[in-house]
Amino acid sequence: MRRSNLALVLRHLRDAGPRSRARIAVETGLNRGTVSSLTAELIDRGLVREGDVERGGSVGRPGQTVELDGRGIGGIGVEINVDYVTAVVLNLSNAVVFEHRVALDVQALPAEAVLDAVTELAIRALAECDERQVTPVGMTLAVPALVDTDDGVVAFAPNLHWTKVDAVSGLRRRLDGHTPGFWGSLPRRHSAIQVDNDANLAALGEFAMGSRAGTADLVYLTGETGVGGGVMVDGRLLRGAAGFSGEIGHMPLNPGGDLCGCGRRGCWETMVGLAALLRMAATPDDPVCDPSLDLEQRLSMLSGRADAGEPRTLDALKLVGEALGLGASILVNVFNPRVLVLGGYFASLGDYLLEPMLAELHARVIAPDACEVALSTLGFTAAARGGAHVALEAVLDDPTLVALRHTP
Amino acid sequence: MRRSNLALVLRHLRDAGPRSRARIAVETGLNRGTVSSLTAELIDRGLVREGDVERGGSVGRPGQTVELDGRGIGGIGVEINVDYVTAVVLNLSNAVVFEHRVALDVQALPAEAVLDAVTELAIRALAECDERQVTPVGMTLAVPALVDTDDGVVAFAPNLHWTKVDAVSGLRRRLDGHTPGFWGSLPRRHSAIQVDNDANLAALGEFAMGSRAGTADLVYLTGETGVGGGVMVDGRLLRGAAGFSGEIGHMPLNPGGDLCGCGRRGCWETMVGLAALLRMAATPDDPVCDPSLDLEQRLSMLSGRADAGEPRTLDALKLVGEALGLGASILVNVFNPRVLVLGGYFASLGDYLLEPMLAELHARVIAPDACEVALSTLGFTAAARGGAHVALEAVLDDPTLVALRHTP
Repeated sequence: MRRSNLALVLRHLRDAGPRSRARIAVETGLNRGTVSSLTAELIDRGLVREGDVERGGSVGRPGQTVELDGRGIGGIGVEINVDYVTAVVLNLSNAVVFEHRVALDVQALPAEAVLDAVTELAIRALAECDERQVTPVGMTLAVPALVDTDDGVVAFAPNLHWTKVDAVSGLRRRLDGHTPGFWGSLPRRHSAIQVDNDANLAALGEFAMGSRAGTADLVYLTGETGVGGGVMVDGRLLRGAAGFSGEIGHMPLNPGGDLCGCGRRGCWETMVGLAALLRMAATPDDPVCDPSLDLEQRLSMLSGRADAGEPRTLDALKLVGEALGLGASILVNVFNPRVLVLGGYFASLGDYLLEPMLAELHARVIAPDACEVALSTLGFTAAARGGAHVALEAVLDDPTLVALRHTP
Repeated sequence: MRRSNLALVLRHLRDAGPRSRARIAVETGLNRGTVSSLTAELIDRGLVREGDVERGGSVGRPGQTVELDGRGIGGIGVEINVDYVTAVVLNLSNAVVFEHRVALDVQALPAEAVLDAVTELAIRALAECDERQVTPVGMTLAVPALVDTDDGVVAFAPNLHWTKVDAVSGLRRRLDGHTPGFWGSLPRRHSAIQVDNDANLAALGEFAMGSRAGTADLVYLTGETGVGGGVMVDGRLLRGAAGFSGEIGHMPLNPGGDLCGCGRRGCWETMVGLAALLRMAATPDDPVCDPSLDLEQRLSMLSGRADAGEPRTLDALKLVGEALGLGASILVNVFNPRVLVLGGYFASLGDYLLEPMLAELHARVIAPDACEVALSTLGFTAAARGGAHVALEAVLDDPTLVALRHTP
């Protein structure tokens, strides 16, 4: 009961902003004494701090406000993708504590070696937390895969060549080894490490902190080696009956087209995945095709060529933009979202993809004016940020996950 | 307050079944006296009746139960489709009070003439209600269209050739004329006539009373002239930001394919709509292509030919089944439903469509075992039943819509 009241006050402060204890009492229906006691506990846990004096508006003497703090609380998101591993640490105000990406040819490595690399990155993130006196409360791993979230298992990740990889156990074992007792302060009831589909987490990240944050009906599309989709329906993530929703890369849009990694021909991914763009825009020995180079660097090379008017690059971007609109029209017709957010390389090269894409959408969507298309401002960190956000949500559900600083 | 408590007790009786007043009090948290008074009022409104004596299980003397009645309450659903107009009246227990279909070549008629035909059918339904002492509480019109449900306007129905038809006003005006004061007993706050997309209503009908009723993640697909989709996500109808979700007929699956009614080529509808099947299975002068004949009769002719092994019919059904699987694979990958329900002619000819469809689905769906495919048992009445259900839901939200029989 007290735990849920702590959560109630904490969420109210996050959603409604700084305010006096008296006002919290009125707005939550809790009594004044309870609010004072709950606030004191949240302050002691480092989740809330004293704010300014509140003036004006309401009747009565001005009150001391309290506000969300959480500078000392960190959520960790780690994304594994085909070409890289990224870690992001956010505090409770979604400010970035740590962010780092490592280029990695994941397909060429066994899963165990990839988990080693993830562990190394996570340890750097944890060290940074330690240095900045941020207490980590959890970590979410984002993977381009069908994920069994309950068991923490990556069921099937075609582009990573992973099948049934027990990612959560593997990561926990490694982190236990390197940082004995690191998660020890967290209550046992809390699952400190989770794994989820990358596009789902990215959609949650966009919904929580993207440029169209709070848009209840939002479709997120990301272009990397694969094409991923995450969908918010009425403010909630669409998961489907078994958690396998949003599999959009294999829409059969080009019968007899190119062979896909899934073994079939003409999947949407073969038309708009990063490999398709690179194949059209460059020769295999071109550095933009080199997976050992950082992805953003490769994309900015492409972008530079487009800026310079290089015809092959421009033609490739136009074709990909049209194919992007072709598939996106299906999703817009099916979901009728308020906004379609483009992430991954679709955002990096959005200046060139958007025009042909919008023309195609306009021609094919039954109600084209109902949906805006926006480029993600979270770049390649959307999934990791979403993962960090999910880790932090656990604290908003249960503030007692964060230890008291002054044990009574 | 009393109104919402009446609704609470009524819904509880519908969902939990017959039980004693004492048990209702325990289960709803209302006090015993209040429950007795609420129950008395619901009985007086004809929504609840005395049931059997409850024995066994719980401690204490056996109690007289009460149960949902509603035999005297009717919800009306009317569906307009390309080839027919259907009306269904259900009582509060979803039993059929009235059902009738009229073959009508809707494309050949102006919208006003179609609304005249709908009115005629509605008047027959109302007369039947009158005769059987069923009080109608509302009517929902189902249309294969983008619908502005708030304003009661059919925004765009390509297959009916309707644009901006003010269906609710048109129907209300006609019904006012024919049956003066018929809706007069309903409170002003109640919108007695509504209009909605046919596939959305059919999905609600399947969710409420189909063979897979209560399945929280359900995709409904209907084949008629057009192809419609309605989706239940976590027990709620997916509507989208502007109410235009579920537009699946124009997925571009066959570039360079047949010309669609929408002006583009290769839409899914051109591969699996009724017209596609008929074009492949018969010559234009074949009676199965005659829109003045009843649709079920035409479909049973086709079914008979397939049963007799007629090669052209069998080939056509195989091709349509494969194309059905091709498009359905997209929806199953995107939504990951527990069940995919096939309605309209897909259900009538399901025996022949299912095998090629399932083969295609199995080859293309990332997690094929997670989704069952079921044939609708509601036939061509799913949308009208869903409409009747929606009309009845208004009474479950507000039982005072039904007049007291013995004004106190």
